[in-house]
Amino acid sequence: MNTHDLIRELREKNDSKIVMLVADGLGGLPLAPGGLTELETAKTPNLDACAAAGTSGLSIPALPGITPGSGPGHLGLFGYDPLEFRIGRGILEALGINFAVGPNDVCIRGNFATLGADGKIVDRRAGRPTTERCIEVVEKLRSIKVSGAEVFVEPVKEHRCVLVFRALGLGDAVNDTDPQALGVPPLLAKGADSASEKTAAIVNEFITKAHGVLKTEAPMNGLTLRGFAKQPVIATMEDVYGLKSAAIAVYPMYKGLARLVGMDILDAGQTLQDQITRLKSVWNDYDFFFLHYKYTDSTGEDGNFPKKVEMIEELDAIVPEIRALKPGALIVTGDHSTPSKMKCHSWHPVPTMIVSDLCRTDGLTEFSERACLKGGLGQFMAKHLMLLAMAHAGRFGKYGA
Amino acid sequence: MNTHDLIRELREKNDSKIVMLVADGLGGLPLAPGGLTELETAKTPNLDACAAAGTSGLSIPALPGITPGSGPGHLGLFGYDPLEFRIGRGILEALGINFAVGPNDVCIRGNFATLGADGKIVDRRAGRPTTERCIEVVEKLRSIKVSGAEVFVEPVKEHRCVLVFRALGLGDAVNDTDPQALGVPPLLAKGADSASEKTAAIVNEFITKAHGVLKTEAPMNGLTLRGFAKQPVIATMEDVYGLKSAAIAVYPMYKGLARLVGMDILDAGQTLQDQITRLKSVWNDYDFFFLHYKYTDSTGEDGNFPKKVEMIEELDAIVPEIRALKPGALIVTGDHSTPSKMKCHSWHPVPTMIVSDLCRTDGLTEFSERACLKGGLGQFMAKHLMLLAMAHAGRFGKYGA
Repeated sequence: MNTHDLIRELREKNDSKIVMLVADGLGGLPLAPGGLTELETAKTPNLDACAAAGTSGLSIPALPGITPGSGPGHLGLFGYDPLEFRIGRGILEALGINFAVGPNDVCIRGNFATLGADGKIVDRRAGRPTTERCIEVVEKLRSIKVSGAEVFVEPVKEHRCVLVFRALGLGDAVNDTDPQALGVPPLLAKGADSASEKTAAIVNEFITKAHGVLKTEAPMNGLTLRGFAKQPVIATMEDVYGLKSAAIAVYPMYKGLARLVGMDILDAGQTLQDQITRLKSVWNDYDFFFLHYKYTDSTGEDGNFPKKVEMIEELDAIVPEIRALKPGALIVTGDHSTPSKMKCHSWHPVPTMIVSDLCRTDGLTEFSERACLKGGLGQFMAKHLMLLAMAHAGRFGKYGA
Repeated sequence: MNTHDLIRELREKNDSKIVMLVADGLGGLPLAPGGLTELETAKTPNLDACAAAGTSGLSIPALPGITPGSGPGHLGLFGYDPLEFRIGRGILEALGINFAVGPNDVCIRGNFATLGADGKIVDRRAGRPTTERCIEVVEKLRSIKVSGAEVFVEPVKEHRCVLVFRALGLGDAVNDTDPQALGVPPLLAKGADSASEKTAAIVNEFITKAHGVLKTEAPMNGLTLRGFAKQPVIATMEDVYGLKSAAIAVYPMYKGLARLVGMDILDAGQTLQDQITRLKSVWNDYDFFFLHYKYTDSTGEDGNFPKKVEMIEELDAIVPEIRALKPGALIVTGDHSTPSKMKCHSWHPVPTMIVSDLCRTDGLTEFSERACLKGGLGQFMAKHLMLLAMAHAGRFGKYGA
């Protein structure tokens, strides 16, 4: 039986709030074997108090050994199997700049490139222009019209932009036009089915016109495309769980991921304290709150172990304000690990805990990778976390008599 | 590959007995965070000795966070995926009164109701008649004949009864006729497919005649129906595991669930000691024994923590008599948790252990929720328990060369 159908069957309404605090890239590694991770190094009296009152474990984002991007990482936390629901690169790029993707949109990552006089690619990144130049050139591309679709061109950074083609019946099974090689021209777009052929025709028309506009913009005189993608057809959190859900996130990417599953995107300000202020102000208006904290990931990506420790301690400091609101279930987790030692996302299971009156406490007194190994949640699939959240918030009836 | 087909391929015969001792609702919760559960409070020297000799863990009945009823809870223990094999309410009601359900039966829960002169429902429970009145009125309904099916009417308790319609080709996709509201008449039965239309026609004929008979029985002058269900098509334990299997259970519901998977239902008397006596007397006649102990659940449902502790200690006392029979594999588990704190079934994983000469012992010296967290079985899906039982009884060959 489909898990979402099971949830729809069992869910019950109550006034119990669920708060999911996602510390992006929370899990870490010791710098040397036997050493302490970032979380183990940090002084976290408030998270430790949660561990003592709650149940801890380690969540596996997609599958053992599989390192997820932000998209699959968050989908798993929201209870959508990240191996079933795939988010294409174009969609993620669009979400990352806070573009409000719609159901009829095909989103594509665009790269400015330098073409030689023979039309062949000389530089795949157009000499890495400044972001200001990118914005300037994108503005010129916005004048282009194509038959049969609305077009949006948005700057991202340096040589990167996003294209969105909006029309009914567009497919996304279209090849990248970026050949990922020098000395060859950009490829023509081709659709693998009739809906995607429609997209390809529109895209080829756009590229021809774009290359006309860009003629005088060398070294930004070419445009290649990658990652054609529509958003996955995905039921909202309200449809699946019956939870009126709000995202309180600072960064556009996470707002976008939350929008994908139908959450309301609230103004979250710029700081953790802003986010907590917002949480308090809307406490009575929602059932589920997704709070996203970016800096545990970005410091990990920077390979800055002590800074990641510091960011964990900053997060720890606001936990009492959340607990004071008395959520029925407070979840602290991450979408994946980002060990400073690796300077990137990793597959290592993510320290996770649930605090609720219905927890079977497990004798832990601290929140850390090592403690979580002994926790009552064991190691579990991230996609099951929302089942546990609903249960601990008293929002499930019994399955079968 | 289908797990049952795999089992059929790998199973081997031997003389090793498997005993599955199910302490219903075994798992619990501490009354306050960090406290002891019922099982942790109970003095259980014999179960603790089993833990030292065996391998322990925690079983997840259906999915993390999902609280099962008795039906799905037991199906999982017997190795049938409770999300694949669903047992409808009508079937469970029939099993609960020890009605021998057959493959051509549609079982339905009936509620006596009070109808006004206009045929609308005034009291959905007919003023909660005594069980004696229920038996009396059911007796009158037994005179009713309908075309095309055998009908059985059985009293349950107070306003509740069970109806069984027996005929080839009856479907169970029929709506409840209980509108679950006052001031409206009972609904007509309608079938969602042709087999179920056949059922609906027979049922409507029965209800018309029943309302005739009940005319003079006010306040029990109406009958509404819920939970139309056939038994799931399910292979027997003997077919799947090659195990000649016996149920030694006191309560009808558990006898019924065992009958669903083809076990022989033995006279188990009324007490745990009766059950053990029966076990000894048939020890050479079966390969698999399901022993069901109800009182860990019923005391949990009552919210009686000390009484549940006492019931666990009573169970502990008989364990040596089972071990003295030298089963190849002794399993101690529950179908779900029933924490006294919650007074109901819960989703919390269930303390489980296997005792066998082939156990990889895990250093545990007690049987409790907290100890099981460190056990060799880890946290595992209940539907996999029978695989472990077969293995530890030496009843599986190697998969692949």
